Amino acid sequence: MCGIFGVSGVDRAAELTYSGLYSLQHRGQESAGIVSVDESLHVHSRRGMGLVQDVVTPTALSELPGDTAVGHTRYSTAGSSVLVNAQPCIVNYHHGPLALAHNGNLTNATQLRSDLVRNGSIFQSSSDSEVIVHLIARSEAREPEDQILDALERIEGAYSLILTVGRTLYAIVDPRGFRPLVVGKLNGGYVVASETCALDIIGAERERELQPGEWLKIDDGRIKNLPDLEPKPHRRCVFELVYFSRPDSVVFGRSVEATRRALGRHLAREHPAPECDCVFSVPDSSNAMALGFAQESGLALEHGLIRNHYVGRTFISPDQSSRSAKVRIKYNPVREVINGKRVVVVDDSLVRGTTAKSLIQMIRQAGAREIHLRIASPPITGSCYYGIDTPTRDELVASNRSVEEIRQYLGLESLEYLSLESMLAAAGGDQGSYCHACFSGDYPIPPPDDKVEGDAASELIPATRNNRP
Amino acid sequence: MCGIFGVSGVDRAAELTYSGLYSLQHRGQESAGIVSVDESLHVHSRRGMGLVQDVVTPTALSELPGDTAVGHTRYSTAGSSVLVNAQPCIVNYHHGPLALAHNGNLTNATQLRSDLVRNGSIFQSSSDSEVIVHLIARSEAREPEDQILDALERIEGAYSLILTVGRTLYAIVDPRGFRPLVVGKLNGGYVVASETCALDIIGAERERELQPGEWLKIDDGRIKNLPDLEPKPHRRCVFELVYFSRPDSVVFGRSVEATRRALGRHLAREHPAPECDCVFSVPDSSNAMALGFAQESGLALEHGLIRNHYVGRTFISPDQSSRSAKVRIKYNPVREVINGKRVVVVDDSLVRGTTAKSLIQMIRQAGAREIHLRIASPPITGSCYYGIDTPTRDELVASNRSVEEIRQYLGLESLEYLSLESMLAAAGGDQGSYCHACFSGDYPIPPPDDKVEGDAASELIPATRNNRP
Amino acid sequence: MCGIFGVSGVDRAAELTYSGLYSLQHRGQESAGIVSVDESLHVHSRRGMGLVQDVVTPTALSELPGDTAVGHTRYSTAGSSVLVNAQPCIVNYHHGPLALAHNGNLTNATQLRSDLVRNGSIFQSSSDSEVIVHLIARSEAREPEDQILDALERIEGAYSLILTVGRTLYAIVDPRGFRPLVVGKLNGGYVVASETCALDIIGAERERELQPGEWLKIDDGRIKNLPDLEPKPHRRCVFELVYFSRPDSVVFGRSVEATRRALGRHLAREHPAPECDCVFSVPDSSNAMALGFAQESGLALEHGLIRNHYVGRTFISPDQSSRSAKVRIKYNPVREVINGKRVVVVDDSLVRGTTAKSLIQMIRQAGAREIHLRIASPPITGSCYYGIDTPTRDELVASNRSVEEIRQYLGLESLEYLSLESMLAAAGGDQGSYCHACFSGDYPIPPPDDKVEGDAASELIPATRNNRP
Amino acid sequence: MCGIFGVSGVDRAAELTYSGLYSLQHRGQESAGIVSVDESLHVHSRRGMGLVQDVVTPTALSELPGDTAVGHTRYSTAGSSVLVNAQPCIVNYHHGPLALAHNGNLTNATQLRSDLVRNGSIFQSSSDSEVIVHLIARSEAREPEDQILDALERIEGAYSLILTVGRTLYAIVDPRGFRPLVVGKLNGGYVVASETCALDIIGAERERELQPGEWLKIDDGRIKNLPDLEPKPHRRCVFELVYFSRPDSVVFGRSVEATRRALGRHLAREHPAPECDCVFSVPDSSNAMALGFAQESGLALEHGLIRNHYVGRTFISPDQSSRSAKVRIKYNPVREVINGKRVVVVDDSLVRGTTAKSLIQMIRQAGAREIHLRIASPPITGSCYYGIDTPTRDELVASNRSVEEIRQYLGLESLEYLSLESMLAAAGGDQGSYCHACFSGDYPIPPPDDKVEGDAASELIPATRNNRP
Repeated sequence: MCGIFGVSGVDRAAELTYSGLYSLQHRGQESAGIVSVDESLHVHSRRGMGLVQDVVTPTALSELPGDTAVGHTRYSTAGSSVLVNAQPCIVNYHHGPLALAHNGNLTNATQLRSDLVRNGSIFQSSSDSEVIVHLIARSEAREPEDQILDALERIEGAYSLILTVGRTLYAIVDPRGFRPLVVGKLNGGYVVASETCALDIIGAERERELQPGEWLKIDDGRIKNLPDLEPKPHRRCVFELVYFSRPDSVVFGRSVEATRRALGRHLAREHPAPECDCVFSVPDSSNAMALGFAQESGLALEHGLIRNHYVGRTFISPDQSSRSAKVRIKYNPVREVINGKRVVVVDDSLVRGTTAKSLIQMIRQAGAREIHLRIASPPITGSCYYGIDTPTRDELVASNRSVEEIRQYLGLESLEYLSLESMLAAAGGDQGSYCHACFSGDYPIPPPDDKVEGDAASELIPATRNNRP
Repeated sequence: MCGIFGVSGVDRAAELTYSGLYSLQHRGQESAGIVSVDESLHVHSRRGMGLVQDVVTPTALSELPGDTAVGHTRYSTAGSSVLVNAQPCIVNYHHGPLALAHNGNLTNATQLRSDLVRNGSIFQSSSDSEVIVHLIARSEAREPEDQILDALERIEGAYSLILTVGRTLYAIVDPRGFRPLVVGKLNGGYVVASETCALDIIGAERERELQPGEWLKIDDGRIKNLPDLEPKPHRRCVFELVYFSRPDSVVFGRSVEATRRALGRHLAREHPAPECDCVFSVPDSSNAMALGFAQESGLALEHGLIRNHYVGRTFISPDQSSRSAKVRIKYNPVREVINGKRVVVVDDSLVRGTTAKSLIQMIRQAGAREIHLRIASPPITGSCYYGIDTPTRDELVASNRSVEEIRQYLGLESLEYLSLESMLAAAGGDQGSYCHACFSGDYPIPPPDDKVEGDAASELIPATRNNRP
Repeated sequence: MCGIFGVSGVDRAAELTYSGLYSLQHRGQESAGIVSVDESLHVHSRRGMGLVQDVVTPTALSELPGDTAVGHTRYSTAGSSVLVNAQPCIVNYHHGPLALAHNGNLTNATQLRSDLVRNGSIFQSSSDSEVIVHLIARSEAREPEDQILDALERIEGAYSLILTVGRTLYAIVDPRGFRPLVVGKLNGGYVVASETCALDIIGAERERELQPGEWLKIDDGRIKNLPDLEPKPHRRCVFELVYFSRPDSVVFGRSVEATRRALGRHLAREHPAPECDCVFSVPDSSNAMALGFAQESGLALEHGLIRNHYVGRTFISPDQSSRSAKVRIKYNPVREVINGKRVVVVDDSLVRGTTAKSLIQMIRQAGAREIHLRIASPPITGSCYYGIDTPTRDELVASNRSVEEIRQYLGLESLEYLSLESMLAAAGGDQGSYCHACFSGDYPIPPPDDKVEGDAASELIPATRNNRP
Repeated sequence: MCGIFGVSGVDRAAELTYSGLYSLQHRGQESAGIVSVDESLHVHSRRGMGLVQDVVTPTALSELPGDTAVGHTRYSTAGSSVLVNAQPCIVNYHHGPLALAHNGNLTNATQLRSDLVRNGSIFQSSSDSEVIVHLIARSEAREPEDQILDALERIEGAYSLILTVGRTLYAIVDPRGFRPLVVGKLNGGYVVASETCALDIIGAERERELQPGEWLKIDDGRIKNLPDLEPKPHRRCVFELVYFSRPDSVVFGRSVEATRRALGRHLAREHPAPECDCVFSVPDSSNAMALGFAQESGLALEHGLIRNHYVGRTFISPDQSSRSAKVRIKYNPVREVINGKRVVVVDDSLVRGTTAKSLIQMIRQAGAREIHLRIASPPITGSCYYGIDTPTRDELVASNRSVEEIRQYLGLESLEYLSLESMLAAAGGDQGSYCHACFSGDYPIPPPDDKVEGDAASELIPATRNNRP
């Protein structure tokens, strides 16, 4: 997953981008980058592995002048976790400097890339985003917009894009609208971002969300709609609401906090645990769900687990490398809350189930008499090919286990998942407009041939997962 | 403030210390250090500015062998924020290597230091802790314990100490017991720490808390009580419970989470806001208090503010350097929760009031109709001389303003503080045993002459303050 | 200027390359890089700004496995002193990984690049070397060798190349042979280098020098000559012998030390200074010339200037930023040698004349009665377009001044340059085979249109110039 | 060995100190440090491991204000090569800040240190220099000068000291005068340095050399002689002239370059090699000696060995770790000069003989028909206890081998050393005033008991040895 951010027509665009990326850090901690374009069309860039505050030092920031900027924060698969894949991509092509930040995943990138290489294109990275740039450069159209359109007509998959050619900024969302993109106003210019929280941090006024297939051009403080891409059925990623986005953002027209509260309420209705003494969340990503559950069920809300917020590149010694030690570094149970109690634990989702297993053990050791786990989304049974780095099917705890088998594996008194219907009801709006392939197997675009199974797996839930609030 | 940690008789003592310090990081982010002593009495150390995970890299950790270790994490005043003050202190004196980690503050350090210097002692740091080491080295007694006792008899103030002479570890708490210190068991050895959360992270069994004036000697897996220091009236720092310690710790025999919940309940009883629509906390330090308030008052609990947990050395540009921009980097309001509502905001304490002022503005801009601030402790009217880095009186918002004046300054519909009596009632136990000088002016030891006012101020609430959960 | 090095068929090829580059450091200190190819055709690389020992740390070196490697050390113009231009270039094209190290300069790179970009090629760097790679990738031939040949037939200028496709290594010298390239044998494999000193440092046996237009293919321990490039008149760069190469190297079949000694002898014959007391060099690049001068003239050789060899990124304070202070940091006169004497100072060449001016002042202040400067090459009157970073004509002290004017500008009793004829006589061999365009204006290939004048200048003689022995 | 430098009464004293240390780098590359004192008596410092240009970055330099400064560059034994031993020592004692830079070695430091520790002094380092500081701090005298005198009366051994108390600077040389110290004038203030080359680099006027036992006080631009220390027979270290100092310095009243030339001449007279074809030096430390040899003997001077001046922390792979590979990294023979010749090689001294052995082999492989090694000093048969880090006797090639045995060990046609008498004659002046203990065993102060043999050895000639010109 990635966070993207762009500025057009506001002074110190790179500083705004820095703050924007900082608030989008939960969308990717692997690498970060900012590209700025100054009045003389000179391009300045800083990209590197790590958090934006590590990559873009104050000195680096001071060397990114201009009123136009694009930023990217990346959260990628293990195999390609290398500097050369850090975005934004920057190239000099015949129309001048082009910078591109991409959130999503192309499903036909392998084929396109292989065609391009056969014709003499030289790739610098293994990222699918570079394919887009080469398609633009190879286009035989004369104007940048036509070249971009040529490229968009050939790519398939999920893409929210921020792109600059010279000092003109384009913001584009694929016709299915998998990933969010919003536009805001600030000091006579415009700002584009993956989530509204990135507008808030810089004090920009939320203008509106881009619709699927929408394409904006921003230039000299003027914003203009280019013709929409050819329409397709909408497929908004429901996991953005369930897990990925920040609770203070509005995504797909919905308050994330409110949606999660609704998920908790639906969960309490579908799977109450009336005999229990209290309910608590796996902080922080499930806080809203636990609150919703408590309010709906009438069970007492507690803080049963405390997170250490100084998480990061903590060294874990060989002696501590067991999963349970890793979990202990991030969470500590509050014994006084748990001891002797029948507790409901609310979590947003279960991916591999390994962290949950250790958490359950920890809660048990803190004296819980019964543990009832409630998951505010359905079982994840398949990988995502549209931008979320889920592991391969084999690694998903629910891919070939029944709920009862998972309950036993985790060592629980009870385990319940929210149903697909309730999840979509809580998400609200047009329930047919969501992509829920990882839960339902209903893939709106066929997975790429080379990914159907046995894919070199990546982690959905890395060490820093729950830094999201 | 500081966090201290010690290990005796457990292999890879430095790695345990690393984890322990990591869980005590909320007690000090300015500098960190670990000293280990190996079987041949060789001393190894690593100290530096920054978080423990930055200072003690895996490579550094691998160069800290031995089954005895002492660690320290420091949170100090601006003036002395220099490497040379990073602890533990290590010296070679006539009985071999001595390492010392100190949490607290000596009130007669200036005088003692000046006497020592006059007699030819050479100080390497400006820390008061080094005074203790010189007193030990200068003692004319022959045995280390008698030398330590000589030193303890001369110092005055707050001190929880972990100290090694060779491979013998001593743990000492001053007779008033200002700061906590606990001992735990692990794999046939012992572990000493500022808080129980540091025992939990390494899986040590909580043994017990040291009492005021208690002095332990741990050697070769055996623990022994040395005679208590001369008794004085107990003065446990109530601010440890209100703000400083982690909610998952047990401090002064009390669950911090439970205490904070009780503070919230008392606050709701003393200062309800029945006409309001909802209550929320300033996360994360006030979460338990807001929950207590909600439960007692029956008001709906909400998540009105979201914190960005990727806080750290974030660059703040000159344009953003206003207090409100700084606050926006850390907190974002959830408009959907706040808009049009009459809200109760619960915070643990008010120090300067500057952050609160910006937060209130932010909540107002998010559409709050009325804002009622409830503080779960009394007004802070004086500095602390026993280890907490409060600013000077002049900077304390409550030092010379009435509650009504503060309410107007902050722009609130109402502002209420918890009374001293209720705070102590919520803290529980022997209410006479607490130090509450910063709230009440009742200083158990006279402030040092050179500190009575005009002290070079330090910040209680630095950028990373609310990283505490 | 650059140094290049390649290994085929010898274990730990990267370590050999490291040592080789280390001995070629005088050919470029701006950036360094090593690429290795392992048995599985995986490519590993390390490139960065700075000296090879700074860029390629032991850790980096350990991550460069394989028996095939290419290395590059670069010494470039200010404008393009950026990481992205660090070589070797590495790309993945349809025949697999390709790495290229280039010493020289293409004269038609701008035109070729512009054609390529117009057709959709995307460049990552501003280096002319990347043009070669794109030409290879775009070739419609099927075999790598034919593709390379396609590229070579389109480029014009100076190039000594080391190139790998998969694990096959190619070594190529342009038909005029501007830059040297030698091949050696080691442990059953082959080594290619800019100078013989790089063979010596790793104990490789000097095999022979590549002739102009020669093209070698080395594969699996077997070396093979591919058909020569279309022949052109030879134009060996005489400045390699005069200044650039190391004295312990054999370049263009000539010992550099012996050639420089001969230059000194010719200089003494053409421009003796019989009335003087002694002769000394500007160390270290002119040592051999001063020795030759002394031997031919019978004047006493002295060490009149001492160099500080700890040169590097020495900070120069604003107060010291005068040229004379800069010179003082590198050289110190020996007063006892100079005071009251009539001295001959021998230098290899005069470029801008600024360093010489300060040196002369320094020698004067040390008490020299008369100073007679003898330059072991003719006046430099034009820029080089074949790989040496001379400044623009305007900055050359001799471009529009007579020798007498330069003598007055430098403040000398006498100044004499070696004649072109004598320089070529000292260089030996076929005197018609040398390029001496910077001295004579006789450019074997027309300068590129965009370079004819007003070029953004670069320094021939940077801070570290005289590190060459 | 160490280099020391001090400034009193000149603006930007730290910058001058930086340049001074830079020119004294040959006296120590292990660590470097600068301490400055500003007008308000605040002390600023920067110390670290490595070269002065690595330790004292421009940023660090800008944080060292004031017109008074002391600097140190250290070259120490392996055992104590740790940051804490980096000088200058800085302490706050009762008279304010004291900084001390020491060149030399105390012979009674162990005893003094043990007494001090027994009385409660706490040492931070293992350096003998810290003993001096403690003795000053412990003195019962009232005035700084009397306290310093108390300390000087207790220490024994070799010391050239630069010391500041507040902004008063003291320069002191021990009564035997082992190590040099010179004073110069600059812009109304004074500069003190180990060698005159450090005065030259900043353009200071050489004032004079301190005599043994001399003690200067410099304050507010005024220089004053304090009473000399109690006189003892002079023992100037002859090795300073033979090897240690820079040729452009004047040391003990003698030009180092001229002295070395004289050493070469005496060597040619004592041990000519009339049948040989040429003579060359082991560059750069023996250049002057080889020149003297050539001039006296009439043999042709050649450059038979070329040094790589980019020496530093070069990585040497396990495969290359043989001594011969290490030598090859630093030196390369010029075959054209050597092949088929009978050569005289001149070196300044032989310590372990290991480098020489490899060099001889390399020269032999380059085709030398005969190799005649001439050493411009006598066999080294004992360690130095006065500041030069010679290895223990066991490691000295000449400690228990005859010259004939060494010749065979090195594989030479002939080997000759300069006699003690000739060395002293070449050194000039009062021949009885030199210390030549390492050559003659005539130790002017008895070696410390704990050093008589079996001392943990250190290297006289580390990797960077011949960086000295």
